Parts: sequence; structure tokens; C-alpha cells
Amino acid sequence: MKHALNVTRQQDFAAWYQAVISEADLAEESGVRGCMVIRPWGYGIWERMQKLLDERIKATGHENCYFPLFIPLSYFEKEAEHVDGFAKEMAVVTHHRLIQKDGKLVPDPDARLEEPLIVRPTSETVIGAAFSRWVQSWRDLPVLINQWANVVRWEMRTRMFLRTAEFLWQEGHTAHASELEAREETMKMLEVYRAFAEDCVALPVIAGEKPENERFPGAVATYSIEAMMQDGKALQAGTSHFLGTTFSSAQNIRFQNSEGQQELAQTTSWGMSTRMIGGLIMTHGDDDGLRVPPRIAPHQVVVVPMLRETEEDTAILDYCVEIVRELGQSDAFREPVRAHLDRRAQKAANKRWGWVKKGAPIIVEVGGRDLAANNVSVLRRDGLYNDAGKLNGSIMGREAFIASVPSLLAEIQDALFDQAQRFLNANVDRNITTRDSLSAFFNRCDRPGWAEVNWAKPTGTELENVVAWLKSQKLTLRNVPLSTDTAAGDCIFTGAPAVERVLVGRSY
Amino acid sequence: MKHALNVTRQQDFAAWYQAVISEADLAEESGVRGCMVIRPWGYGIWERMQKLLDERIKATGHENCYFPLFIPLSYFEKEAEHVDGFAKEMAVVTHHRLIQKDGKLVPDPDARLEEPLIVRPTSETVIGAAFSRWVQSWRDLPVLINQWANVVRWEMRTRMFLRTAEFLWQEGHTAHASELEAREETMKMLEVYRAFAEDCVALPVIAGEKPENERFPGAVATYSIEAMMQDGKALQAGTSHFLGTTFSSAQNIRFQNSEGQQELAQTTSWGMSTRMIGGLIMTHGDDDGLRVPPRIAPHQVVVVPMLRETEEDTAILDYCVEIVRELGQSDAFREPVRAHLDRRAQKAANKRWGWVKKGAPIIVEVGGRDLAANNVSVLRRDGLYNDAGKLNGSIMGREAFIASVPSLLAEIQDALFDQAQRFLNANVDRNITTRDSLSAFFNRCDRPGWAEVNWAKPTGTELENVVAWLKSQKLTLRNVPLSTDTAAGDCIFTGAPAVERVLVGRSY
Repeated sequence: MKHALNVTRQQDFAAWYQAVISEADLAEESGVRGCMVIRPWGYGIWERMQKLLDERIKATGHENCYFPLFIPLSYFEKEAEHVDGFAKEMAVVTHHRLIQKDGKLVPDPDARLEEPLIVRPTSETVIGAAFSRWVQSWRDLPVLINQWANVVRWEMRTRMFLRTAEFLWQEGHTAHASELEAREETMKMLEVYRAFAEDCVALPVIAGEKPENERFPGAVATYSIEAMMQDGKALQAGTSHFLGTTFSSAQNIRFQNSEGQQELAQTTSWGMSTRMIGGLIMTHGDDDGLRVPPRIAPHQVVVVPMLRETEEDTAILDYCVEIVRELGQSDAFREPVRAHLDRRAQKAANKRWGWVKKGAPIIVEVGGRDLAANNVSVLRRDGLYNDAGKLNGSIMGREAFIASVPSLLAEIQDALFDQAQRFLNANVDRNITTRDSLSAFFNRCDRPGWAEVNWAKPTGTELENVVAWLKSQKLTLRNVPLSTDTAAGDCIFTGAPAVERVLVGRSY
Repeated sequence: MKHALNVTRQQDFAAWYQAVISEADLAEESGVRGCMVIRPWGYGIWERMQKLLDERIKATGHENCYFPLFIPLSYFEKEAEHVDGFAKEMAVVTHHRLIQKDGKLVPDPDARLEEPLIVRPTSETVIGAAFSRWVQSWRDLPVLINQWANVVRWEMRTRMFLRTAEFLWQEGHTAHASELEAREETMKMLEVYRAFAEDCVALPVIAGEKPENERFPGAVATYSIEAMMQDGKALQAGTSHFLGTTFSSAQNIRFQNSEGQQELAQTTSWGMSTRMIGGLIMTHGDDDGLRVPPRIAPHQVVVVPMLRETEEDTAILDYCVEIVRELGQSDAFREPVRAHLDRRAQKAANKRWGWVKKGAPIIVEVGGRDLAANNVSVLRRDGLYNDAGKLNGSIMGREAFIASVPSLLAEIQDALFDQAQRFLNANVDRNITTRDSLSAFFNRCDRPGWAEVNWAKPTGTELENVVAWLKSQKLTLRNVPLSTDTAAGDCIFTGAPAVERVLVGRSY
């Protein structure tokens, strides 16, 4: 069977990933090292993600703010562990002016900054400094803040959406009077991420706590949601950190408690980024391109008129305009249906395949025969082919189609989630009890999936040895799932009595 | 009469401006030179502006994208005039790593970038490079793109919202096959800005063309909307540029026209920024703080329960919750009413004055007596005092109040606009015909407003002389209004026959 992309997932997953990004017009190389241009269809998906996640962040009591792009170098010196985690990969601003010299533009030596500025890799330090100004008394707590921003981490090897020097994200930052409340906040936002990923992006995930070696620099505890890509690798799709008093002591976030004593605030932070678009591609893409779940699709229904440069064209266009107008008056997922009429001066078949590759959930074609019979030709992107390998289009009456769109979109959203959930369920092995069988599991094929195994939660050198062995197998510890069986038996790595179960896998 | 701020507009306009920003919790100094922290109420206003302007940008056919924060230095070398305009004030990234040296963090000399990166002051160059990849044929045109982003210009003297090193904005960039179409686009977006400023921000403006000396670096023509602040100064609140082929020749944006010949594309750019919040403050603020027009107010109605730590508190809170719920079900300006219940543990009077200073359009207080009588106590922020100088609150029946909110909000929106429009109209003198009387007009008082005068549109040295004389008077040319009388008589500056009329004023 011929497909729209010239490389399949089976042939070369990495090349297929790049092909989807290119053929679906999601993003492209910018000419600036490690930075990408996010094109309208990719950015439109990000805008949908932003809207739906922002609603959830606000519904849980958080307010949006904006903090500086630049962080003075000295802020990083205050928190040693944090800077160790980031110091190796930050963009440093050292000058504030250019001059002409020998016909070339160069940084002006007279405009060297006294203190270099760091382009924020994350904003704990600068937001902590603001919190220390804002918080005096227990009455000022909790502080519940979120920021949508660009951040920069100087990555050596970059890959579009998954690891870029600059990326877009939201970072939540909160301060609380008690450890209990801060820990509850950390878990609440982890759950917001889980629900957003599953309900909006149709991305089934496993939520759990990261082992010590995978913690955010400076965190007391880090939690993540992990999604399984179609090549069986894990993608960390969102993280939530309980920071304890690490940053409040570095940034002096103190408050007078109700007994009149000074205490350090307990802080959290949590983030989700444009990486999620990489997860979307590798979860829902197929050999014909991307498939976008309806809730985050910039256009949910695309109408392609089949014009033939005849007199009938005007009537066909009018008919399409009316369909788009009527769709816009109906609701799906409690929002107006997003329908788009593709008027571009291109052949209808090219336009159809363009929208297949972009992954618009429903593609409607309208030709002269449809017009005459008051019909539309409907293609569902989630079930593009029938059993015979032919395009699975169906002719529907116009009114019946328009009336069915809300339920069709809901069906597609569910179908994409269910397919991904079945894939995840089928590819986690929970019965491995020895290192040898763990090795064998991961070496038995190209795309082995994950293993969930007993472990004793080793720390220090013992953990380092485990991590080193795993690294030799190209494996990483993903997280300790919140909802799984309790451990019974011995740690697969150390032989000590197991205390919990941990997910192991290859990862992005 | 006592007011909520400790400085009035009359006493010290600059100090008053800072007091509003501080007392309304809009923004604060960040500790990072020239950068501010935008606090939730300020950012909430920006989010409302973004939403309403973004809808208008999309309704005129533009799509959002995202381009890199960093621009390679060499991109600026391609367009000499453009870099002359910006080279003096840009943040330059020269290193990509820090190391520890003598116990201090310093830029790693081994991690010096081969080519420095500029933090974008505006994105014509990097977006032009993308356009040159995207555009091959006339069929690829027009390209209609917008970006919401942060930009950095290294300003020596900064002032919150008006001139900060980092600021937030949108920048639209388009490419067209013909000069006519590009010029039409330039004017269309100027009109989008005018309508947005007037209809949403209630900011009356004068739209017109900037004189040559005030053009954007590289532009063939620059248009602006100019708003009058309460101190009579002008604020440029949005600009739209026709760039001709300046950037398409520098960035090689070429297309094959329908006759098969290569042509340079004609480009435009247009931007509006967080500066608009400065304009909002100086247009609608009063001696009690900010007044936010309802369309851009994060909360349109704030409900303050008057609690006394008695048993009745629960019933009062329930009553308030129900009011907020019912308000949320009604629409104003074709969106659900944004009502907020202020549950904070503070005295009701403090909360009321807090919302007065923030400028919430309608403040509702509910005490035991209101509850008993099924009433609410209503305060309109746009008419805070009665003629006797007392707070102008009114008691209304609950149902009557809820039913009246949509029309009340519309009334407040209109009242703020009308007040500002009357102020603008009253403070532009259109009858000045000599330099001496122009001098006298601007020296007669502290807040003289603007003058619209005849001029001959001088260029080159002649224009420089005019600008120098104006500078000696602390005056600038604002713009040549699109809709005003035709010129008749002689140029006030050169004595030559006038060709148009130009606005002169002090400015931010």
C-alpha cells in the first residue's frame, strides 16, 4: 500500500519523525543553531494546547505573570546544586551594543556588561527573588503563579520539538506555608498534566515519582508523566517538583507564621513545553503524516472544494461557505466547531493530501455531484483506509453530516486515545525479575517497550551503580508509578527487599 | 478631597504614574536592569489585550508563528540602514557556558560563539530569511504572518511599560506580489490598531503617517496611531510599516511572477506592545488609581463580602457565590461576564480600596443588611464620587443589578472613551500659523497638548533643520493625520507652500 510519506515508521522512525514535521508544515530549521521556526500549523496546535492547559492552570487558582528573560549571573551562584544542573548549557549575554570595526559589526568593547546576564533556562531564581519581596506574613501565602515563556538551554544535539536550544513552555511557581500544602500542590499539578495529556492530547501517560538521580537540580522530589512513543521509547511529557526550602533559603523567601516566628516558605515548580508536540507526533502520527486529536486541532473540519474552472465553481464555493458557517454554529467539546474552507489555488487532490499529512481530523470534499445531491464526501483521518487498503471515504447527506460532526469529533478523540492506550498497555512488561531477563527483554527486538520491575530504591553509590549498568544497556529509570501493584520480592538490581516498582525504558 | 493615591496627577504626573503601577499591582522593578516583573493584574490586562487583538489579526487572514529569539550577527550586516537604527542598543550573546573560576561563575572562554547572537530587537531579518525559503512563485503570496514574542532593546533610560529593555509585543510580517497590495496591507493593519485601541482600550487615537525622520529603520513609509496622555504628551501606541523591497532585497525574497519573471516581494511589518498598558494608565488613571475599560478588565465585577466573623458570614458568602455564578451566565460584549469573588482574609474596606486602585469597573459589596434585603451595594469605578465629594455607591436589588450588568459595562466602556475623546479634542490646536505662536502655545502652560499645523513636507537637510528647531523646543513631529483638513497656506517651518498638515507635540 502506498502512503503519503516517503518513509514509514517501520523503515526509519527518526527519519519518519522529521518527515512528518516537514510534510505537515509543523516546523523547520531556522538557520539559527538549535532554534526552529514553528510554522502556522505547528503553532496553531501549540495555541490550542496553551488555551486548554491555561484554563486548567487558572481553574486550580493560579494567575499568570511575566518575569525577566535575563537573570543576573549572581542569582545562580546562590544555589549551587541548581547551577550545577544548568551551568553547562546557558546562553550568556556579555555586551549591550555593536560597533562597526574594519567594516564588520562586532560587540563594542566599551559596552561590556559589568555582570553577565543569563538567558533564563528556567526561572526559579528570578521568581524566587520576587517571592521574597512579596511574602512577609503567612497571610501572603500561598503564592500561586504561572508564566508562559521562552527559555534557552544550550543543547549540543538538538531535535525539533524534543530538544531545541530555545523552546516555549509554561512554568508554574508556588510558595506555601507548610510542606504538606506544597506537596499537595506538587501532586495537584501532576494530576493537571496527566488529565490534560490524556483528555486533550489523547496521550496516555504513566504518572509517578522520578528516582533521585533524575530529579530536577535543587528539587526534594520530582514527579513526571511518561508517554510511550510508537518506537517503544519513553518521552517525559511534563514534570512537577517539590522544592522544599532549597530555593526559599537561597532567595530568602521567609514569612512570619501565625505564632509570630520566621519560617522559610516551601516552594514548588512545574512545567510543560513544546516538547508535547513531539510526543503528539510520535504517538498519533502514521505513515500518511500527523493525526491531530480534535480537541487540539486548529481546524477540526477542513472543507476542500473540487473546482474545475467552470461556471459551477461559484455554486460549489457558496455551498462550502454555507457548510463552514453552519459547522461554526454547532459546538464540540463545549467550544464552537472549528471548520476551515481551503480556498487556495491548488488542485483538490493535492489539498486533500496536504490536510491528510497535517492530520486534520475530518476532511470534506465537495464536487459538482455532491452539490447536485446535497451531499458531502467525508474522510476521517483516524481511519483513512478500509480493509481493502482503499481510501475510506463516505458520502453523507449535508444536514446529516453537519449534525453528526460533534459526535464524530468525540469519537475520533476517543479512538486516538484508545489506540494509544492499548499500545501502551501491550508494551509494558511487569513480570521481569532478573537483570538477565531485563537485558533479554530489551535486546529481543528494536522496539521492546518498557519494563516495570521491583526495586529497593537504592541511594548514593548503590544507585549510581544501578544507573551505570542501565546506561550500559542504553536504559534509564523513568518513574515509580503512582498507581501500580505494591512491590513484593527482591530488587532486580540490588537483591535487597523491594520497596516499590520502577519503570525502565529507553528514552528521548 | 482625599484620594487613594498619595500623589495626584496635578502634583507630579511622573510620580503619579509610578504610584498607579505600584498601587494597582501592575508591575514592579525586577532587580534586572531595565526589565520589569509584570504582576497578575497587569498581565491579566495584557492577556485581555492579546486575546482581542489576536482575534482581529486572525480575522484579517493572518496566522501566528514563532521565530527564534536569537538572530545571527551577520543577518544585521545585510541591511545597513536597519542595523544603524538598532545597532546601538542590542543584547549580544557571546558564550554558551559558564565555568567556576576562583570560586566565581564566569563565561567559559572555551565556549565563545564563533558568531555572536543578537537577542531580537525586532524580527524583520530572521523572518525575512524564512520568507525567502517559503516564497518561490506568485502562488505562494501573500504570506501573512504574526508573532507574539518578547524583544530586547538596550535602553539607557527606562520607564515601566513605556520603555523597558525587554518588552512583550506582537509583530506582524507580510510579503506581497505588488506594491499596491503591500500598501493596502499596511493601511489595513493601521486601521486594525485604531479600531482595537478605540473599541477595546477606549483609547482615542489619531492615525497618520510619520514624517521621514521618524520612520522605522529600513521602511519606505511608517504609519502610527498617536494617543494623548492626560499630561498632554503624545504616546505612539502602534506602528505599521510599508517596507517596500528593503528587506526582500537584503534577505533575497524573490518570486516568479505570472509572466515567469523574477521579482522582489514587497513586505510590511506592524507592531503593538505592552507599551499600550502605559497608555491605558495615563489615559484612564485618576487620583484613586487605574480605571480599566470593561472589555480589557481581567475582572469586570468584583464582589467583596463584608464578613464580621459571625455565623452570618456563611450566608453572606453563599449569597456572593450565587451572584458571581449568575453573572458568569450573562454576556457582555459577546463574552461571558467576568465576575470575581474576593475571598481574601482582609478587611472589606481594604479590599474595596484595593479594587478601586486596580480599577475594576464595578465593585459590589455585600453585608448583612444587603443579604437580608436581597440587595447589593454597587460602586462604579468610572464615577467614584458624587458632586458632594462622597463615594457614589448605590443600593440595588440583586436581580435588577445582575440584569443591568451588561448594559452598565457597556456604559462604562463608552463613558471612558468619551471622556478621553473630549480631552483629546479639547487639547489639539489647529489654528497656529507661525513658529512664534507655536512656541508660545507650548510654553503657555505645563500641559499644552498638541498643535496641528501646515507644512511643506521638507526632506533632507531642510527637514533636519526643522527637527533640530523642534528639539530645541522639546517638541517632535507626531504624524500627518489621515483624516484632517487639507493644507491651505504656507508651511509654518519653511514658509514654502504647505502640502499637508502635521501634528506637533511633546512625547513619550
